[in-house]
Amino acid sequence: MRTIVNPPSSAWNDLCRRPVKDQSQLAVQVGKILSDVKNNGDRALLKYTLKFDGAATDDLRISEKEISEAEKEIPDELKSAIAVAGSNIERFHRTQLPDDGIIVETLRGVRCWRKSVAVEKAGIYVPGGSAPLFSTVLMLAIPARIAGCREIIMCTPPDKNGKVNQLILYTARISGVTSFFRVGGAQAIAAMAYGTETIPKADRIFGPGNQYVTKAKEMVQLDGVPIDMPAGPSEVLVIADDSAEPSFVASDLIAQAEHGTDSQVLLVTTSTALLSEVSKEIDKQLPALPRKAIAEKALANSLLISFDSIEKCMEFSNLYAPEHLIISVSDPAAATECVTNAGSVFIGKYSCESAGDYASGTNHTLPTNGFARNYSGVSVDSFMKKITFQELSGEGLLNLGPVIQKMAAAELLEGHRNAVTIRLNSLKNA
Amino acid sequence: MRTIVNPPSSAWNDLCRRPVKDQSQLAVQVGKILSDVKNNGDRALLKYTLKFDGAATDDLRISEKEISEAEKEIPDELKSAIAVAGSNIERFHRTQLPDDGIIVETLRGVRCWRKSVAVEKAGIYVPGGSAPLFSTVLMLAIPARIAGCREIIMCTPPDKNGKVNQLILYTARISGVTSFFRVGGAQAIAAMAYGTETIPKADRIFGPGNQYVTKAKEMVQLDGVPIDMPAGPSEVLVIADDSAEPSFVASDLIAQAEHGTDSQVLLVTTSTALLSEVSKEIDKQLPALPRKAIAEKALANSLLISFDSIEKCMEFSNLYAPEHLIISVSDPAAATECVTNAGSVFIGKYSCESAGDYASGTNHTLPTNGFARNYSGVSVDSFMKKITFQELSGEGLLNLGPVIQKMAAAELLEGHRNAVTIRLNSLKNA
Repeated sequence: MRTIVNPPSSAWNDLCRRPVKDQSQLAVQVGKILSDVKNNGDRALLKYTLKFDGAATDDLRISEKEISEAEKEIPDELKSAIAVAGSNIERFHRTQLPDDGIIVETLRGVRCWRKSVAVEKAGIYVPGGSAPLFSTVLMLAIPARIAGCREIIMCTPPDKNGKVNQLILYTARISGVTSFFRVGGAQAIAAMAYGTETIPKADRIFGPGNQYVTKAKEMVQLDGVPIDMPAGPSEVLVIADDSAEPSFVASDLIAQAEHGTDSQVLLVTTSTALLSEVSKEIDKQLPALPRKAIAEKALANSLLISFDSIEKCMEFSNLYAPEHLIISVSDPAAATECVTNAGSVFIGKYSCESAGDYASGTNHTLPTNGFARNYSGVSVDSFMKKITFQELSGEGLLNLGPVIQKMAAAELLEGHRNAVTIRLNSLKNA
Repeated sequence: MRTIVNPPSSAWNDLCRRPVKDQSQLAVQVGKILSDVKNNGDRALLKYTLKFDGAATDDLRISEKEISEAEKEIPDELKSAIAVAGSNIERFHRTQLPDDGIIVETLRGVRCWRKSVAVEKAGIYVPGGSAPLFSTVLMLAIPARIAGCREIIMCTPPDKNGKVNQLILYTARISGVTSFFRVGGAQAIAAMAYGTETIPKADRIFGPGNQYVTKAKEMVQLDGVPIDMPAGPSEVLVIADDSAEPSFVASDLIAQAEHGTDSQVLLVTTSTALLSEVSKEIDKQLPALPRKAIAEKALANSLLISFDSIEKCMEFSNLYAPEHLIISVSDPAAATECVTNAGSVFIGKYSCESAGDYASGTNHTLPTNGFARNYSGVSVDSFMKKITFQELSGEGLLNLGPVIQKMAAAELLEGHRNAVTIRLNSLKNA
């Protein structure tokens, strides 16, 4: 861990820099998979499933039987926990449903409004592999269902026997997924972007994944398929003062570090004493961690920074724009007020990041890699589009018509002007 | 114009297909400009401004003096028209400011909420050329100002003498643009995406443009810069029945057709009589149009389709997903209720598209090319991001903690579980 005391603002940009990977080779590989699936549909999917997942399946669609069998395998205790998390996520996300009621009469007889409509088909990718991230299913399918998507398509990779993780299947069923497919990697993204014989084309694509998946998501954008957000390693920035509990802070840094060796972990504090106390606590907690080897590598690149005021801590955090921001200070309200760039914020010493990762109700699909500056996390909005409406009465056109005519003429668009003139003439002759 | 009576649904997908251009060569050209500006900043911008605009300028920033001089040149009558349009756009867009007041207590002691925050720097591109599209400035800068962007950066190309269109400058000043630059084309997009010595890096990039501009916008997305939406030729679909006025319908089709030879123009009607009446009216109105040659080419590719019910018309329209949808039928409320895919909708015979293009209050930056299926037009939302917050009290963690522990354990993330365990232990020992 690198400890830095009071870095000058000239050094801040460097401290905020994330590692950059050269991915030019990746684009070539993924581009081939995308065009193969686009041209050959299911045949390409089955080929890649054999090649990359080692599964010789001939049925991409997951059967009802497989889903209901999965349900039987999940312990009741875990089912109850998932139900509580799902209910919290549902409750919070329901408040995000837009209120479209307002009709604005901008001039007499000129009424404007808008309406939010769900995209018809949401495509959700859920990674498989060693750790089954079933919490991601809750975070994507529940908002899609609340938005009103008619179809919620889920793709997740099979194991060597062609089987899909049962926890993922169970969670998908209770969250509102309507179509279940066993296919992973870049080929799954291609399938949802372009559609195949079996897998429907999705209107928007969501979900985390390995470098092939995230590159594929990036590339299908160029074909006009919106995605949730660009990807990057997960990250946490903890802002703490003397009032913070070193063992809690250490546990949050370790939890972030266990995600992957490229996880970004920062402590920013006004207390130089805390810097060493947290270091000691990390050394104490780390040995018991099953994913110790991963966490150690991430922690080796982590930063422990002290500043002489909470204001500076907040300013630095806004420049860094962390995916997760934990604020553990004696006056959290004042600090919270200053947040302008962050994915999700955890306030006070009992708000650990893992609360939001699973169950508090907020979404865990968040912008990382500094993208919290210009992207939002997933919400009900992510599954909706907005349509505007206007209705002009005869009176409305009499009021607004001359304005349109002058502006159209100044833009040299006489056809636009004439569409008004011809109507105004008919009103005047009436 | 192609007239089609009652096409079977098997033919609908073909009728909805937009022309596809091969742009692989374009990507290479634009890619070179992007990396040149990324590496060489202002020097590259000045070089391309000389090369593409023929302007030998050494000052990319437009001076206060140039802006205030522009103001003097605009006729008062046009200024008043722009003021009315601006005020309508402001009034409608103000209602889009999100209401962040709701705090949800998902479980006792677990409080969640979210806050909308403007992106700091909005980048706006405004094309120059023969027709000065100053209305675009209103449509982009006003929502950016309402959202609360601290900086609104505008790039627009100079003419051969290095001068920028005065109407664009004037409109930008009154709409809230804070930084004005004379630079156009793909190089302007690159400047706002990466930043140069003179031009600040924008958090999001907006605005229409030629094929170089739109390809550049598409490509900078891969570097994590969000754009308003993918581009395509402008389009209108008119749904009409016997009650529609053929001369009005014809004027709307012509207004759309004058945008460009690739404009998409469709009439969908339940009245076969209207098909020929509108054709006749087009022939009558067209000769007087200054941009007749352009409109004729667009109209040659246009479709006039009749169906036997308004329901079928609406179904076809939702499949087509038009940028602009005009509904001129005797029961517009019922038809309007059916709209699921459209950019902006114009209801009734006095609601011509040019009302929304300029002055009704709705935004004219809209998804085209079928993207109304999965994209929204520009609104105040386009300039904001949303941050979520959660605050757990000790009681909150006692309630939620066991749920998090079980889920983290099932995802094999012991570090996530421990962040809860260590806090629960301290609460139990207290």
